Amino acid sequence: MSIVTLTTDFGIKDHFIANIKGAILSELPKANIIDISHQISPFNILEAAYIIQNSYRSFPLGTIHIIGVDSELNPENKHLVVKFEGQYFICADNGIMSMACLNIEPEKIVEINIHDKLITNFSVLDVFVKVACHISRGGKLEVIGKSISKIKSVKNLTPFINESKNQIIGNVIYIDNYGNVITNITKSFFREISKSREFEISVRNYKFKKIHSKYSDIVNFSIDQSKRNNDGQALAIFNSSLNLEIAIYKSNPVNFGTAASLMGLNVLDTVTINFK
Amino acid sequence: MSIVTLTTDFGIKDHFIANIKGAILSELPKANIIDISHQISPFNILEAAYIIQNSYRSFPLGTIHIIGVDSELNPENKHLVVKFEGQYFICADNGIMSMACLNIEPEKIVEINIHDKLITNFSVLDVFVKVACHISRGGKLEVIGKSISKIKSVKNLTPFINESKNQIIGNVIYIDNYGNVITNITKSFFREISKSREFEISVRNYKFKKIHSKYSDIVNFSIDQSKRNNDGQALAIFNSSLNLEIAIYKSNPVNFGTAASLMGLNVLDTVTINFK
Amino acid sequence: MSIVTLTTDFGIKDHFIANIKGAILSELPKANIIDISHQISPFNILEAAYIIQNSYRSFPLGTIHIIGVDSELNPENKHLVVKFEGQYFICADNGIMSMACLNIEPEKIVEINIHDKLITNFSVLDVFVKVACHISRGGKLEVIGKSISKIKSVKNLTPFINESKNQIIGNVIYIDNYGNVITNITKSFFREISKSREFEISVRNYKFKKIHSKYSDIVNFSIDQSKRNNDGQALAIFNSSLNLEIAIYKSNPVNFGTAASLMGLNVLDTVTINFK
Repeated sequence: MSIVTLTTDFGIKDHFIANIKGAILSELPKANIIDISHQISPFNILEAAYIIQNSYRSFPLGTIHIIGVDSELNPENKHLVVKFEGQYFICADNGIMSMACLNIEPEKIVEINIHDKLITNFSVLDVFVKVACHISRGGKLEVIGKSISKIKSVKNLTPFINESKNQIIGNVIYIDNYGNVITNITKSFFREISKSREFEISVRNYKFKKIHSKYSDIVNFSIDQSKRNNDGQALAIFNSSLNLEIAIYKSNPVNFGTAASLMGLNVLDTVTINFK
Repeated sequence: MSIVTLTTDFGIKDHFIANIKGAILSELPKANIIDISHQISPFNILEAAYIIQNSYRSFPLGTIHIIGVDSELNPENKHLVVKFEGQYFICADNGIMSMACLNIEPEKIVEINIHDKLITNFSVLDVFVKVACHISRGGKLEVIGKSISKIKSVKNLTPFINESKNQIIGNVIYIDNYGNVITNITKSFFREISKSREFEISVRNYKFKKIHSKYSDIVNFSIDQSKRNNDGQALAIFNSSLNLEIAIYKSNPVNFGTAASLMGLNVLDTVTINFK
Repeated sequence: MSIVTLTTDFGIKDHFIANIKGAILSELPKANIIDISHQISPFNILEAAYIIQNSYRSFPLGTIHIIGVDSELNPENKHLVVKFEGQYFICADNGIMSMACLNIEPEKIVEINIHDKLITNFSVLDVFVKVACHISRGGKLEVIGKSISKIKSVKNLTPFINESKNQIIGNVIYIDNYGNVITNITKSFFREISKSREFEISVRNYKFKKIHSKYSDIVNFSIDQSKRNNDGQALAIFNSSLNLEIAIYKSNPVNFGTAASLMGLNVLDTVTINFK
């Protein structure tokens, strides 16, 4: 019995999630349904891709991921199953999967064609649940759709490097629960360009010359605790996803504000690194 | 082993939900507990009824629904088990079930009388969980209460029709995660009155002459994507619950505002349909 | 198979919770993972302790509680397993457990020393999950750490009593989903000091001479319902945790405001009881 995960922009107040879970459990009484997130901003495929990309690898092979973001069927928004790194993703062909897969080739892409069974305008319930249960029972993908070779690609947000390779301009791609600001500059990309040169990161009028690997790296533990002043301090870090993140130490919206609020940063804003 | 669902106004920060789940699992280690919603507005029985009404049918026969909204026992708020369409609903007699059942007669109504076991003022934990576990183990309802024939009825919000049957005045009954506005005018009711006549829906100063069955029905896919201008456009639709809904295409509070925010609509506000 | 609970300040939008659940299920496919709360205010160990204290007893013996609040490993923030009343708590040594245990002695305290397996700066995922799975499989605590005898104690918020024992000054320790205000004055403590004397509770300019045991105790059910005026009325009550709580009857932020909003109360504000 596979795990079935749910990633949606449905929120947690309405009855939509309960409909999906009830429908799955009616077909598969022993299904293990795990909520990834229902708080994706409405129709925000960039956020959905970031969440999917950073969570699927934690799950065992064979896990089935239902993605209910911008999923109404229409001529430009087909329904897909993408098999990718041994896991199944059921979603609309709206660019989420091309962003989530990055440069890795999917093992299989199937365009779902069981829409004669579409009952309402609630695609996730009428179609995605049926497909998930089919896969969970060991059913072949060919039964619910036809193989295709391409999914809709979205001009992916990759950081810009100037010609002389002494400047990276990246973008904010996500703001997390602590208001920390995550960029599309990954540790491996940074290392490739950096070649151990000195650097300065500029975000608004904040500057950073070091990228930490732990938040508490900024604390000098040899100073007496009462004399330290780290809470609320800004820092640059490679976060647990190994993306460059601008953070506030023990960020708390009430006491200090967050990186996003203090620096006035939003998704798509730029972060610049200059090398010496 | 039955599924036990939870619908409450307890929110998801406090320890209340954990108390309930821990108590159920202590009695029934294999219970499958599903959250329907914990975000019902405090004491809002109208919202609770809407959520229950739109979710229970997704669950298998025998499912047990615990409803923790306005449930403190007092002389005017007895505790009930209502058996209805093969499912069990444990709640206070505060009108939720009469609204959720609509015109369908419950199979059985039992007034719970095990309150000698009431330990604290947390009825859902002390009483509803005990009753749910009893039912889940196959116990008879007569053991935990006495059969009664009536539950508290709430003057249900049914749409008004004028004498000449050329006007329906409905009400907003719910606003969903997207800020879309759901009315008490159902598709079957509309069809019965409409008899295929032309009509105009008035909501504030917005007018609609068509009720769609899919959100993307308003998109003209023959026009090049870059030249379309549908995002943020208002429309009328029969939603997946088959209620008349006023929606904003790809509504997003940040980019366009929502139907509720743009039209200044709240629960109980009116929506009028005039027939020609 | 033990139940594993999660109490964090990670929120429910990001991928962090999914990472934890996926990692646990990869090691223990039949694990029963229960969310206690992910809405702890960032780094707020007082809130976390209150939630833990009020929820763990609902769970069966052997339950494993993962607490992901302020958990990054550093020289002043070691990682612990505390065995306490037959249950296991995995957390950082930041004061949460000393507050949650109150005056009860833990059965065992182990300082975790498997940090050679630390992969990222996400301690809960890299360390706590591994430890939880080890305990769930019946592993000994000595394998993952060394026994210690003391955990970091936090000057606990206990109410102040004046010398003549006719005044208690307590503090607000938590504000719940209804905006009701919970203090550190427990029923047993109150009774011990009170010795049945008359009293007056002062909170801002509100006064209470009675502490109720049910919210609806303030309602006079012999008066016709249409003539009553209780909704929105302030009261003092011993809540289901048996703490003194200042509440608003049927408190609702929209209609009446809440105890916290109406009285302008925050965590750590004082509540005074004078005895005659």
